[in-house]
Amino acid sequence: MTAVSQIDSRGKLRHLLTTEGLGAELITDILDIADSFLPEDNQPPKKVPLLRGTTVVNLFFEPSTRTRTTFELAAKRLSADVLNMQMEHSSKNKGEDDLDTLFTLQAMGADVFVIRHPENGAAAYFAEHAAKHVAILNAGDGSHAHPTQALLDCFTIRRHKQKFAGLAVAIVGDVRHSRVAHSNIHALKALGVTDIRIIAPPPLMLEDPVGMGITPCNNLAEGIDGADVVMGLRLQHERMHHERLPSVAEYHRDFGLTPATLKNLKPDAIIMHPGPINRGVEIDPEVAYGPQSVILEQVRNGIAIRMAVMAMIAGAGNRAA
Amino acid sequence: MTAVSQIDSRGKLRHLLTTEGLGAELITDILDIADSFLPEDNQPPKKVPLLRGTTVVNLFFEPSTRTRTTFELAAKRLSADVLNMQMEHSSKNKGEDDLDTLFTLQAMGADVFVIRHPENGAAAYFAEHAAKHVAILNAGDGSHAHPTQALLDCFTIRRHKQKFAGLAVAIVGDVRHSRVAHSNIHALKALGVTDIRIIAPPPLMLEDPVGMGITPCNNLAEGIDGADVVMGLRLQHERMHHERLPSVAEYHRDFGLTPATLKNLKPDAIIMHPGPINRGVEIDPEVAYGPQSVILEQVRNGIAIRMAVMAMIAGAGNRAA
Amino acid sequence: MTAVSQIDSRGKLRHLLTTEGLGAELITDILDIADSFLPEDNQPPKKVPLLRGTTVVNLFFEPSTRTRTTFELAAKRLSADVLNMQMEHSSKNKGEDDLDTLFTLQAMGADVFVIRHPENGAAAYFAEHAAKHVAILNAGDGSHAHPTQALLDCFTIRRHKQKFAGLAVAIVGDVRHSRVAHSNIHALKALGVTDIRIIAPPPLMLEDPVGMGITPCNNLAEGIDGADVVMGLRLQHERMHHERLPSVAEYHRDFGLTPATLKNLKPDAIIMHPGPINRGVEIDPEVAYGPQSVILEQVRNGIAIRMAVMAMIAGAGNRAA
Repeated sequence: MTAVSQIDSRGKLRHLLTTEGLGAELITDILDIADSFLPEDNQPPKKVPLLRGTTVVNLFFEPSTRTRTTFELAAKRLSADVLNMQMEHSSKNKGEDDLDTLFTLQAMGADVFVIRHPENGAAAYFAEHAAKHVAILNAGDGSHAHPTQALLDCFTIRRHKQKFAGLAVAIVGDVRHSRVAHSNIHALKALGVTDIRIIAPPPLMLEDPVGMGITPCNNLAEGIDGADVVMGLRLQHERMHHERLPSVAEYHRDFGLTPATLKNLKPDAIIMHPGPINRGVEIDPEVAYGPQSVILEQVRNGIAIRMAVMAMIAGAGNRAA
Repeated sequence: MTAVSQIDSRGKLRHLLTTEGLGAELITDILDIADSFLPEDNQPPKKVPLLRGTTVVNLFFEPSTRTRTTFELAAKRLSADVLNMQMEHSSKNKGEDDLDTLFTLQAMGADVFVIRHPENGAAAYFAEHAAKHVAILNAGDGSHAHPTQALLDCFTIRRHKQKFAGLAVAIVGDVRHSRVAHSNIHALKALGVTDIRIIAPPPLMLEDPVGMGITPCNNLAEGIDGADVVMGLRLQHERMHHERLPSVAEYHRDFGLTPATLKNLKPDAIIMHPGPINRGVEIDPEVAYGPQSVILEQVRNGIAIRMAVMAMIAGAGNRAA
Repeated sequence: MTAVSQIDSRGKLRHLLTTEGLGAELITDILDIADSFLPEDNQPPKKVPLLRGTTVVNLFFEPSTRTRTTFELAAKRLSADVLNMQMEHSSKNKGEDDLDTLFTLQAMGADVFVIRHPENGAAAYFAEHAAKHVAILNAGDGSHAHPTQALLDCFTIRRHKQKFAGLAVAIVGDVRHSRVAHSNIHALKALGVTDIRIIAPPPLMLEDPVGMGITPCNNLAEGIDGADVVMGLRLQHERMHHERLPSVAEYHRDFGLTPATLKNLKPDAIIMHPGPINRGVEIDPEVAYGPQSVILEQVRNGIAIRMAVMAMIAGAGNRAA
């Protein structure tokens, strides 16, 4: 799926398509740069002129106001010019119209494309056909990858736990269809997390967790026992047409993050969720806004991570190369 | 409806939710600051760096291209970063999804929220739950309030009449459902206008005008006799489902602002309308673009007023407080 | 249709409504200025502060993401503030609502209006009613004119052929309904091109080509014989309801730009298309992305041309005049 390399010959980030294959050193660089973009407590977000004159296009083939907003804000805080383009995706022409759009926007001088797309591998497809000066940033392709979400999750974990070695991370929910989970598993493993548990009913479980070095579990109490991090996922109704699933009420009772289900959680564990939350489905508001939740920190950190990645790929000297 | 105070302990404007309770001194401050943002004749609008680095979110739960545009332009002329978000409002969850949206955007570093919402009290609800550094600006909530419209109306009146004492102001039309009228009545009374007349057919009249110190009237010729200001309102078709109303033709004949109905208007009276006008319904184009009309001045003044309010609430030192 | 003059008393461009009547000198000035806005090879697009403080409104009564984007980017690279407004056009009120929109946005301080409209003459209608400080830029009105497209086409031709005298230009396709073709014919003739051929099936042919000094032709091989420039047009399905047309397959075979139909084309001829292309209809991708195609250069050049025109009309001293 990634015939094109997201790392250039000097080891620098050229595109960001997936966390698969990113080394610990490169991920750590991204997190360190993100640290520098975080505002001080009670201070307004930082605005820097790093990308003045750069054109960032949010090219979304799936609607997502929230994700688009985080990239738009990150780009504006780097002083880039931002274009938002909400596109229809037609699957009948094998991506040719998508390429026409890419070529046209490249010719207009766009430098960074933030791509959201319903098909697995779409970001890599764009990267494969992009001009030399263009960088592609995957903002979610099908159920494949959502690398900036995983990086901001790792960033959030590091800010609370300092190091990754020895952590137990429990991911709860629809892991099979979750690009967030897939990207997190790759990133966490690269950073040295060896105890990753997936807690899900069988239809939502990964196909081969053990082969991936993951501990599968279909009991929430068991799965979160001793966990340092509990990461809930959204129930992606639109991706579950053909599965035999429990009802929402059963799912909430057995796999929802609630005061009842989390009563034995370690007191210093943190609770994460990529948002937006489905209240009363995969998480209760008492938990989402409770003392162990870092969900709103994830949102804040997401801006810093996206600033870091954009600054790295747009500043990689692609024009000169 | 306003458990949260829009004035801070130092008497400064913290949010702008309603004109109710705003004192003459504070309103006068706003108008004075707006004066400083008005462009000179034939000069381009002023662009100032006051809000550089500030993020303003236009969070609209009702579509309104025109109102959104005025806030967007005002924010851009203050050099703020602006996000436009058109949201669906679902009434079934008691505002919880709205709060998730607020919390998420706060976490992204948004500083000022311009809220447009179909429910009365929505702006105050956001203000009640907002973080300390965040300011809420009501851009119209249900039939409750539209304070920047009232302020720009007062601003326009002051520029023509210099003072408020002794003025007779006639408000014509659907006052019952008009947030514009409600906000104007509070502001005009605060500024010392004692002769306010409401001219409307019974189904569109206020419930207790006399208790509010207002003179009700159902005859246009009578109501505008001696008036210094005549303010037409839009017919809000969408808010009048269950009323027994005259036909549009009857309404136009009896309450429309036309050359015929206004023939005895004082020659120095000004004619106002919040726009957009329904030509041939509540106002005729000969009147709207005639010599006594100040409707386009209202539009121009609206940018200055919104710049003034944003500069005041965003500059109130909320981050440091 | 152009009662209002797009040239002011000093011979400067005041609005840009049509290429009809633009002299060679003025067109050459525009192309020369556009040259100065083109980025160097492998360099990012230029960002200049020429229009800082100017408000450009993209006022679109027809949807066109692509055209809107080129004007938006051009305006942002000139450092203008840009408003995008997607409007509904109602034909029932003879343009009065359109004027209310114009007057309102003028009052907000908008300086340049980029107008896209389904009706012939709409841009001139706006120009006729616009305030003295406002400039109107036609981004396509019905089947009448699309002057910036014609200017960028001439610019592209000049960059490849250096001069216009002696060139043979073949325009292929739906010329009758094409504002692009109409604007190109006027501009090319003004610049001294005397050999213009129109290649189209009878229902898509101009009504009086010979009277316009154009050579009509309904055979592609014949029409492109000796041509220096071949310009394909989009098949505008939506404008062809009532015509007797060949099927898409027949059209493609007889008038499509394909390796087969172009096999006798001069080796140094250039192939143009205003985009977006309908692959396999009026052009094949092998041609669109082949060595003789300058289609993506047209896109790049379109930004420079639009920057040039905006800089000229916004900088024409309208405020002071």
